[in-house]
Amino acid sequence: MINQEYLNMLSNKNIIRILSEYATGRGKEIGYENVFDFSLGNPSVPAPQSFTDTSIRLLQTKSPMTLHGYSPTLGIPEVKEKVAASLNRRFDMKYTGNHIFPTSGAAGAIAHAIRAVTKPGDEVLVFAPYFPEYNPYINGSGAKIKVVPADFENFQINFDAAEEALTENVAAVLINSPNNPSGILYGEDTLEKLAALLTKKSEQFGHNVFLISDEPYREIVFDGKEAPYVAKYYPHTLTCYSFSKSLSVPGERIGYVAVNPVCEHAEELVPMMGQISRGIGHNCPSSLIMLAMAETCDDTADLSVYETNMNLLYDTFKELGFTVVRPGGTFYIMPKALEEDSVEFCKKALKYDIVFVPADNFGAPGYFRVAYCLDTDKVRRSLPRIREFVRKEYPNAGH
Amino acid sequence: MINQEYLNMLSNKNIIRILSEYATGRGKEIGYENVFDFSLGNPSVPAPQSFTDTSIRLLQTKSPMTLHGYSPTLGIPEVKEKVAASLNRRFDMKYTGNHIFPTSGAAGAIAHAIRAVTKPGDEVLVFAPYFPEYNPYINGSGAKIKVVPADFENFQINFDAAEEALTENVAAVLINSPNNPSGILYGEDTLEKLAALLTKKSEQFGHNVFLISDEPYREIVFDGKEAPYVAKYYPHTLTCYSFSKSLSVPGERIGYVAVNPVCEHAEELVPMMGQISRGIGHNCPSSLIMLAMAETCDDTADLSVYETNMNLLYDTFKELGFTVVRPGGTFYIMPKALEEDSVEFCKKALKYDIVFVPADNFGAPGYFRVAYCLDTDKVRRSLPRIREFVRKEYPNAGH
Repeated sequence: MINQEYLNMLSNKNIIRILSEYATGRGKEIGYENVFDFSLGNPSVPAPQSFTDTSIRLLQTKSPMTLHGYSPTLGIPEVKEKVAASLNRRFDMKYTGNHIFPTSGAAGAIAHAIRAVTKPGDEVLVFAPYFPEYNPYINGSGAKIKVVPADFENFQINFDAAEEALTENVAAVLINSPNNPSGILYGEDTLEKLAALLTKKSEQFGHNVFLISDEPYREIVFDGKEAPYVAKYYPHTLTCYSFSKSLSVPGERIGYVAVNPVCEHAEELVPMMGQISRGIGHNCPSSLIMLAMAETCDDTADLSVYETNMNLLYDTFKELGFTVVRPGGTFYIMPKALEEDSVEFCKKALKYDIVFVPADNFGAPGYFRVAYCLDTDKVRRSLPRIREFVRKEYPNAGH
Repeated sequence: MINQEYLNMLSNKNIIRILSEYATGRGKEIGYENVFDFSLGNPSVPAPQSFTDTSIRLLQTKSPMTLHGYSPTLGIPEVKEKVAASLNRRFDMKYTGNHIFPTSGAAGAIAHAIRAVTKPGDEVLVFAPYFPEYNPYINGSGAKIKVVPADFENFQINFDAAEEALTENVAAVLINSPNNPSGILYGEDTLEKLAALLTKKSEQFGHNVFLISDEPYREIVFDGKEAPYVAKYYPHTLTCYSFSKSLSVPGERIGYVAVNPVCEHAEELVPMMGQISRGIGHNCPSSLIMLAMAETCDDTADLSVYETNMNLLYDTFKELGFTVVRPGGTFYIMPKALEEDSVEFCKKALKYDIVFVPADNFGAPGYFRVAYCLDTDKVRRSLPRIREFVRKEYPNAGH
């Protein structure tokens, strides 16, 4: 008899995927260039040439047995050392290769980090709005998700609610800045307050609460700013990173967990993640991809398009009277829908071939997510359509 | 507080790894060419040129956004279709792309297959001798391993013991032919008897017992034979494959589960494995590697070296009076040690810089595994050393 739990999961379709599939289908009818598909967070810029060139060079010059041979269980040492050196240089940290665990993107990183610092039944605290795939990562580990309601003013952390939710059963807190779906960047003050709260509660409980920091958008920050490096604010931090966005290689499934050297059990956590990988039969990411990443981990694709797109959309949403917080990074923006039911709102947008995603299951009911990882020309072409949609469907809105 | 279970796993060191690390260390002292390291099953032949050329061509000609973009949750359709077509052509099967789930090697395939067809508490039956990594794959799913003792005559299946062990709590049976560690190939008669037993028990229990067939050595078969294709013998079969050996790319972590189209729930099992992947944050293998594999999945590295090595070692072991069954495939052979304690036997071999692995935790106490994935020159050079070791340490053995 097959596993009923996984069978039942099949009926819980991911709304992002449903809308993305709708957009693809509609594209076949009217031409995909005529569908303004803001559903999927799939990077829209090519990988840097250095990644392509490095991959080709490795294939042309390295012995196939070295290049494609088994990696050690905890990853290729030279890859881990290069990642550590890059983080140390950029963020003034003290990682060694032993603190770096290569993973299948940020998804793999988060799933491993949760398993390492929780036991079944523990709670993992997340702050709305949050990426809904956190549910399967946390549920899959046997821990339970506990959601702190959003601060709808600015989508920083709602600290009153956080303090109340941070009970003794919470083993780890999972944050994501710059944030999917809101685009918000946590400022230094937010991180300092969070660290103070975690330190206070850890002392109170007599054990450390771990901080899992999901940072795939770390390199997509606007207005010339840089994202504060979360692990600098709180010692017991596991940094979960993906090169999907910075190198624009989401299909290659490459990322890492970086265990803060001053974290409790810093030396055991990476070997423990190796054991976790054994049990799920994953082992390492592709050796070729690991080696290509190690040589290009300081490079990025041309990420400037996202800021251009953000400004175009933010200005248009403001002009049309939307309640919307200006993103500090990512390629998302999350305005409030013009009626209470954001699903209805998004359905009406579909009539204009505009595909937005209701943010209800991101913990932001009544809001919708706009993924603007499209070329700027298409974003420009979408603006009159968005105006038409809003003016026709919501003639009484504040525009 | 970190997860104690994974922490405790750190002290259960893998004996293969320990011996392999010993060999590497000893190699630094006396030159690795002077250490006869038969510990690790790491392929010793380069990937076929077609794999390298295809990878380079994809990088040079495909749009980086297509090549490195997110794969659909269940894998890239054209990759799945090519794998299905290859299996259909070679083994007269009727797979479609929908029956193929790309995985991180056979390890990922087995871990997903077990989760799909068992629930926590169910038993998974394995036949000694067996690959000890089955323990973490099965334990990690919440199911329990149940080991059927070996038939030491020929290392085919001990059917009397199998019939006794195959109780109602057994949800799946996991086999591995050609076999690691014994090198034995299950013949048609073994597979027919196994299918009959599974069919009888399934009827008796009122539910189907699934067969998980671990086949990474399917292409390494000796004496001009071919491995019988297991899924042809029993409908409810999930075939777990890895290209690690056939394409000699173990570091690339690429394989698949193929769900027999006549299997119960054949259409749901692949989507369920997609859900399992979500929970462990794995998603798909590397998109570049999937696409390169799809175009080269009918090719193999030059695998003939393994048969040459096997014959050299088999003849030497026979000459020296060992009890040993001649392998039908793989790059392993598993003779009986010349004293009851195989660990002591392997320790004595180390004095001669010969690294064998005790097979006790493969379910074959008193035996030892010899992984002959070395170049043939080194195997030839090892033979006088093996003779010296045996004649000096076991002067009364039957040589």
